[in-house]
Amino acid sequence: MSTHPVVEFTSPSSWAMVEDKFSPFGKETLAKLVNFMKEDVLPAVRVAHAQLPDDPVLRWKTVIPVVGELKAKAKSLGLWNLFLSKAHYPNHGVPLTNLEYAVMAEVLGRGGQMASESVLARYGSPEQQEKWLLPLLNGQTRSAFAMTERFVSSSDATNIRTSIRQEGDEIVINGHKWWISGAGDPRCALHLVLGKSDPNNSDRYRQQSIVIVPANTPGVTVVRPMKVFGYDDAPEGHNEIIYDNVRVPLSNLVLGWGKGFEIIQGRLGPGRIHHCMRSIGAAQMALDLMIQRVTDPSRKTFGKYLYQHGTVVADIAKSRAEIESARLLVLSAALQIDKARAKGAMKEIGIAKFVVPSMALQVVDRAMQAFGAEGLSQDQVLASTYAQLRTLRFADGPDAVHIQQIGQRELKRAPALVKQTADIKKKEKILFEKYGLKQHL
Amino acid sequence: MSTHPVVEFTSPSSWAMVEDKFSPFGKETLAKLVNFMKEDVLPAVRVAHAQLPDDPVLRWKTVIPVVGELKAKAKSLGLWNLFLSKAHYPNHGVPLTNLEYAVMAEVLGRGGQMASESVLARYGSPEQQEKWLLPLLNGQTRSAFAMTERFVSSSDATNIRTSIRQEGDEIVINGHKWWISGAGDPRCALHLVLGKSDPNNSDRYRQQSIVIVPANTPGVTVVRPMKVFGYDDAPEGHNEIIYDNVRVPLSNLVLGWGKGFEIIQGRLGPGRIHHCMRSIGAAQMALDLMIQRVTDPSRKTFGKYLYQHGTVVADIAKSRAEIESARLLVLSAALQIDKARAKGAMKEIGIAKFVVPSMALQVVDRAMQAFGAEGLSQDQVLASTYAQLRTLRFADGPDAVHIQQIGQRELKRAPALVKQTADIKKKEKILFEKYGLKQHL
Amino acid sequence: MSTHPVVEFTSPSSWAMVEDKFSPFGKETLAKLVNFMKEDVLPAVRVAHAQLPDDPVLRWKTVIPVVGELKAKAKSLGLWNLFLSKAHYPNHGVPLTNLEYAVMAEVLGRGGQMASESVLARYGSPEQQEKWLLPLLNGQTRSAFAMTERFVSSSDATNIRTSIRQEGDEIVINGHKWWISGAGDPRCALHLVLGKSDPNNSDRYRQQSIVIVPANTPGVTVVRPMKVFGYDDAPEGHNEIIYDNVRVPLSNLVLGWGKGFEIIQGRLGPGRIHHCMRSIGAAQMALDLMIQRVTDPSRKTFGKYLYQHGTVVADIAKSRAEIESARLLVLSAALQIDKARAKGAMKEIGIAKFVVPSMALQVVDRAMQAFGAEGLSQDQVLASTYAQLRTLRFADGPDAVHIQQIGQRELKRAPALVKQTADIKKKEKILFEKYGLKQHL
Amino acid sequence: MSTHPVVEFTSPSSWAMVEDKFSPFGKETLAKLVNFMKEDVLPAVRVAHAQLPDDPVLRWKTVIPVVGELKAKAKSLGLWNLFLSKAHYPNHGVPLTNLEYAVMAEVLGRGGQMASESVLARYGSPEQQEKWLLPLLNGQTRSAFAMTERFVSSSDATNIRTSIRQEGDEIVINGHKWWISGAGDPRCALHLVLGKSDPNNSDRYRQQSIVIVPANTPGVTVVRPMKVFGYDDAPEGHNEIIYDNVRVPLSNLVLGWGKGFEIIQGRLGPGRIHHCMRSIGAAQMALDLMIQRVTDPSRKTFGKYLYQHGTVVADIAKSRAEIESARLLVLSAALQIDKARAKGAMKEIGIAKFVVPSMALQVVDRAMQAFGAEGLSQDQVLASTYAQLRTLRFADGPDAVHIQQIGQRELKRAPALVKQTADIKKKEKILFEKYGLKQHL
Repeated sequence: MSTHPVVEFTSPSSWAMVEDKFSPFGKETLAKLVNFMKEDVLPAVRVAHAQLPDDPVLRWKTVIPVVGELKAKAKSLGLWNLFLSKAHYPNHGVPLTNLEYAVMAEVLGRGGQMASESVLARYGSPEQQEKWLLPLLNGQTRSAFAMTERFVSSSDATNIRTSIRQEGDEIVINGHKWWISGAGDPRCALHLVLGKSDPNNSDRYRQQSIVIVPANTPGVTVVRPMKVFGYDDAPEGHNEIIYDNVRVPLSNLVLGWGKGFEIIQGRLGPGRIHHCMRSIGAAQMALDLMIQRVTDPSRKTFGKYLYQHGTVVADIAKSRAEIESARLLVLSAALQIDKARAKGAMKEIGIAKFVVPSMALQVVDRAMQAFGAEGLSQDQVLASTYAQLRTLRFADGPDAVHIQQIGQRELKRAPALVKQTADIKKKEKILFEKYGLKQHL
Repeated sequence: MSTHPVVEFTSPSSWAMVEDKFSPFGKETLAKLVNFMKEDVLPAVRVAHAQLPDDPVLRWKTVIPVVGELKAKAKSLGLWNLFLSKAHYPNHGVPLTNLEYAVMAEVLGRGGQMASESVLARYGSPEQQEKWLLPLLNGQTRSAFAMTERFVSSSDATNIRTSIRQEGDEIVINGHKWWISGAGDPRCALHLVLGKSDPNNSDRYRQQSIVIVPANTPGVTVVRPMKVFGYDDAPEGHNEIIYDNVRVPLSNLVLGWGKGFEIIQGRLGPGRIHHCMRSIGAAQMALDLMIQRVTDPSRKTFGKYLYQHGTVVADIAKSRAEIESARLLVLSAALQIDKARAKGAMKEIGIAKFVVPSMALQVVDRAMQAFGAEGLSQDQVLASTYAQLRTLRFADGPDAVHIQQIGQRELKRAPALVKQTADIKKKEKILFEKYGLKQHL
Repeated sequence: MSTHPVVEFTSPSSWAMVEDKFSPFGKETLAKLVNFMKEDVLPAVRVAHAQLPDDPVLRWKTVIPVVGELKAKAKSLGLWNLFLSKAHYPNHGVPLTNLEYAVMAEVLGRGGQMASESVLARYGSPEQQEKWLLPLLNGQTRSAFAMTERFVSSSDATNIRTSIRQEGDEIVINGHKWWISGAGDPRCALHLVLGKSDPNNSDRYRQQSIVIVPANTPGVTVVRPMKVFGYDDAPEGHNEIIYDNVRVPLSNLVLGWGKGFEIIQGRLGPGRIHHCMRSIGAAQMALDLMIQRVTDPSRKTFGKYLYQHGTVVADIAKSRAEIESARLLVLSAALQIDKARAKGAMKEIGIAKFVVPSMALQVVDRAMQAFGAEGLSQDQVLASTYAQLRTLRFADGPDAVHIQQIGQRELKRAPALVKQTADIKKKEKILFEKYGLKQHL
Repeated sequence: MSTHPVVEFTSPSSWAMVEDKFSPFGKETLAKLVNFMKEDVLPAVRVAHAQLPDDPVLRWKTVIPVVGELKAKAKSLGLWNLFLSKAHYPNHGVPLTNLEYAVMAEVLGRGGQMASESVLARYGSPEQQEKWLLPLLNGQTRSAFAMTERFVSSSDATNIRTSIRQEGDEIVINGHKWWISGAGDPRCALHLVLGKSDPNNSDRYRQQSIVIVPANTPGVTVVRPMKVFGYDDAPEGHNEIIYDNVRVPLSNLVLGWGKGFEIIQGRLGPGRIHHCMRSIGAAQMALDLMIQRVTDPSRKTFGKYLYQHGTVVADIAKSRAEIESARLLVLSAALQIDKARAKGAMKEIGIAKFVVPSMALQVVDRAMQAFGAEGLSQDQVLASTYAQLRTLRFADGPDAVHIQQIGQRELKRAPALVKQTADIKKKEKILFEKYGLKQHL
């Protein structure tokens, strides 16, 4: 059995399924990452929390010191920007496959979405990369990807109302966005804004464009932070933003007019898998906390350990089983992306997308129940983890959309199945005749 | 079919099951309550929220103006302290049955627990009632019931560590509590503190006593507000409190030494039912919001209403069915309390206690999903409702405890069932013989 | 608390909800019925089974002796044809409300559908009633209601293909039916056949008619018994039948040409409720068996009773809760039928229809699991009960149809809810202005 | 993407996870097996059914002709006894890993358990193998493994009551077994009987022995076939058997006195995995049937395809997701057996054992619902498949046992987790001090 350090964080049998698909570089990076998490990241979580002020204004102006330290160490260890796979981003990437990064994403447990970095690395012009991407990759600046709009169901991207139009050598932007993650951070330097540049184009997927808007451009107003349950997720936040006659130079257009939909599609597949693996890491962490709680001798009630009551052991067994099978689903999807790109892995990605967040929510919920009120409080990470996971049931498309797509894919198998059945029936008929049997139709 | 106004808030068929069990006073009060909710309370919800400052200190020093207004109007309409049933509280109560109040509790949808009022009204001495209860019932002061302790599983009351001991004509209290609701309110005048006065008593249910502690007594420190999914629920809050050599006069002992367990048992039955009916009101409200959202023409995606996608209609149907059956369960438990007191209704109360909160959480979760990110935010009441409901899966005993108790009750039916089976087998044997049939054992 | 005998078979709290709605006759009949079940019916179940031959031909020619005896006793006790409510069937009925009969149906636990009797009693001409109904009600003959067709989805009645046409003073019937319950019984005297008499009528619900076909009419062929999970349910069975140029006199038309759809609609509401209450009786019986099994000292494993393992106690508690709430749902639907006829109780009937069979299947499945392999075998009634209950998830319309109808009914509440919300918003706006607060839209 | 024929029967992404772990022989055998299933086995299923007489006596004396033909062809193709892995059975085995055979077991979809063959091949003496095993492996004879006993919970093997004792140079067996699969077959030549040879041994796992009993030994009575739901599974059946002073020579003892428990443990791991993969094959088949039904234009209701109603598409998507994740779980368990033998794969085997049968039952149940009554009948394989799958929730140990074992395994991780947490807390404390922050304990 493998003694690779990943086994501490995941399961030996999952590792056995993929170990021979890892490069030496992948294995070495993974080992370094596991060590970094244990030695540096996990001890810093509560510290970071304590370094964020309660004051409703100050908390949005703070750069958390311990996070800066971690960032520096991660860079020095070669654990920075691991999400940029060389296969997709030859200039900026790290030589990891999607499968390799998927395992690392579970170890990371959670982390930012890095949407803008992905877009700029893939679709930015050399000048745009030079000016905006490099400081982002160095961690000097932050960015926000402004897609979701208030008052419309923007899970259907054709509903977007923000207007992007050319006036001379400028682009003028007007729109009302919300849930724009990262826009509250004092270091946020740019917004990538999606809007309609050609609303009457008969091809509904050519109506949208994406524009780089410096965060301090006149007309950009960050209205308020949106909360998830009671969390404001300062200092990054998820913000409501109004763009009122915002003007930027033509060179800030990304990829070209009408390319907005193509850009957002391109980044979705691998990103969804990363979300999924981080969710699995979160579920694993919740189960680990639950196991410690229910075996804690100081928590006995009515003379018994908590695990000796009710259905606790069964709940733990189910959580274990659900985590194992979800992890295999996601690893298999990551491998499929490596073999057939995101387009050839739509089925696997879609299944993972609607299965994993619900699974993780359920595991975290069981852990919260074992902790009682403390499980919902600021003294444990469970409730805030639940809140974050809950957003994943509609971020990048609600469960229902993915469920429908997977179901419709299955229905397309019908003609082949009907033919196969007809072939079998033909042979069956011959056999019935051969044996002189009456066939009840 | 009834045209009673309650039908607007609940279902005609549930009303038909209980209408003939309502007194004229009960019907009239219910009608007034429905009207008050629609005309006064619901329009004030967001106003109250807006009147609470964001500042982390000021929000705990605020008495919300619009709430004061509602209180005055409720009193003038005779809709104040409805929870004190005359049957249980002859001196202070309102002539409503538990069944009648249960229906009203659904209309109320949510509200405080009123634990201290119940205790003082039932067990307080005339002097205690005069001094502490009357200002509470008038709404001039607030109180906190201090039971849950930090670092121990206090769902088993025998685990309580707070010490209560007599010194001369004083009582000295030392302990560390948390999740003490209401202790953050600037008007909070007293704590009812549960502790161990006789920890070596061989009867584990005679070890506890309850003492009235004025909130401003030296040695009482409100450490911090505990949060539920990020919400601090200011200004009432759920607070961590340290009692450090707190001294009060002997006359502050409630009911007598060693009566603590008896007191907390006495208040649980009806209180649990009220929680349940408020949960049903919350679920009904969530379903109503969901219906409005999925039929909103401005929320169409891919050319269809939201309700035309996926499993939305089925989710709504299931929510409707779950609310209906949960409501009937709770009404039936309330009726049982009226017929056989809480002791004779343990089965019905226990079932409602573990069924209803999970049901309501599920209905609210479906509604949140229909609203997307907005459903988790401060712009809708769904997420904060979810957070409150989530606490009910362990408040007054975790689900697991109630499930075990109901299961154990069922097992006690075994001897009677075995006897019934033996009787049937005896008659069966006679029949087999009569017909000359061989009986396969 | 009531000491009425029904309490032995059901729960005191459900009985408390409806006791005051029972007439003295209803109470007396119920008490007699409970006694008859315990003294006579339950001891005869295995006897009846033993009196049915294994031989694949003989089992369809057998009238089971012990059943005849039970029938005679039931008649003598006034417990015969209880399902015919006098309110709906003034000439033949028993003075019981739907609510009263619903409670009795649970006691009965299971039984035939009596579809033809209901139809003839309600819609038959005096001559038809004289000739066909009276021998049925006396138990001398049996009947079959021939609606479902092979090769089409006949849950949509407009898909029916059987042709019914007039030729001179005769009616000619051609069609291919299956799942015709009771047609295998040697005493089956008549089929009520649904077919299309006017397939081009623009009103799709006027295309169907129903005709009485004597079972021995030339052209009627009972092809084979259909099995349910391997059970043939002899001697009644569920049969495939071909009607090949079957001719009957014009006087055999029921109610009139084009009245077929109206007839089948009329009988569905109360019948569905009866199915539901029998399902609840079956679930209750399964739970009682499970309790006896898991407390059986001879069934210990690894030194413990079965109930001390895993989640058995929790499973029992959940089963108890599910039975209680399902029973209240059905009783409430029955009361609604009494108050507002089937048409006014569509919501309550629909909810019960999709909730109850799934609930009962789950309870029986848990009991089967407690019994292990024996629970699936002919030595316990659980597996055959499961098979019967499983058909109820599509008999009289599949779950999906009822779920959709309930969901759509809820959506119709949208305009009223939108108006209510607008009213509240208007008052809210006034309050915001009154207090000089800025309202975030 | 792979174009290997297995992809027709399973999913490309699962295949991608394991393809590089297959030997050329494994791939070639798998391809032959897929072809054999399509060309020969599937067309013969209904034929075999039609060749079994209805007569309750004759059906137990029949050797089904088409099955003999298939057997011969399978042998000629090298597809016979694939379940005997060479790694475990060097003398008789086929050079396939557990992983390779697991994929084939899904293709097979279902099949016998082969318990006796496994036992004799592993533990039989050369003489026993010569006399009993070779004719079994050639398909000339059949066998039965007699373990389960009537009237006791034999899932705990120490409850076994059958007595096995030595008298001179003979062994005398007395016992009452049931659910002995295969004992009804006219070709059944031997029973392997488990009983207690040393009931007072202080080591409870040394009390049992296993003895070969020729089927025609005096004192062996096959009492009756047990049914599963209504199925008798003739001609093999699952039979009740009484052993009344049955005498066999001493040489019929397998492996040695007191080795019974060791023998049954040895065969369980891989066997459980094979059951699981066949269950997945059954679930896949059910989904394929469902897809064909809901897209069948002749099955439209209310003007729509069945898949356009209610939650059908979502049900299909969920079934697809559940099959995919269950398959990966089982493949991962099979690989783990290859790497660490059954003992080192207990966790993976246990998870698969309780997850897969419930999953498959759910998928089959959804398919049955899509077919309506036909889905429960003898015209589709769904109901009989459901019945077979239902037994797997307790065969080789009920779900509850496996759930408990997995849960208890997880609890054993507690000490390591507690230590890891302590290490993190120590580092956390240093960080808090370094930054001069007050740490709330």
